[in-house]
Amino acid sequence: MKARVFITAKEGVLDPQGKAIEHALGNMGFTGVGEVRQGKVIDLVLTETDQTKAKASLDEMCKKLLANTVIESYRVEIVG
Amino acid sequence: MKARVFITAKEGVLDPQGKAIEHALGNMGFTGVGEVRQGKVIDLVLTETDQTKAKASLDEMCKKLLANTVIESYRVEIVG
Repeated sequence: MKARVFITAKEGVLDPQGKAIEHALGNMGFTGVGEVRQGKVIDLVLTETDQTKAKASLDEMCKKLLANTVIESYRVEIVG
Repeated sequence: MKARVFITAKEGVLDPQGKAIEHALGNMGFTGVGEVRQGKVIDLVLTETDQTKAKASLDEMCKKLLANTVIESYRVEIVG
């Protein structure tokens, strides 16, 4: 089973990477670019075949390792 | 208009961050985790209202700044 985890900075948390991209795009002449936020995407291959169990396991992985839940939020998606 | 850009290492390109996550998950007792790949996701707010123009503009942004097309591939998605 393939899973995908999205990790993004929570609303209101400063995102310096996003801001850097925003300014760089402006300097390069790209107009009409508003807020930019950068996050992480992690693709995992799991041997688990049960979707519910896989999601529970991924949730635990996010809380324990993948995301810093103080400043980041995460979303788990089963891709196939 | 909101757009999302996914940037991932191309097949065959070494992904040390993904490997580090893979090993860390194994060490933490998560079994059944196969290959892990880490990528970036960039959310942009655009003032452009035409989807085709927005996609063309995003494509240019990826080629010029967001992705290193030698080792990374990108995918553009209009979110809404």
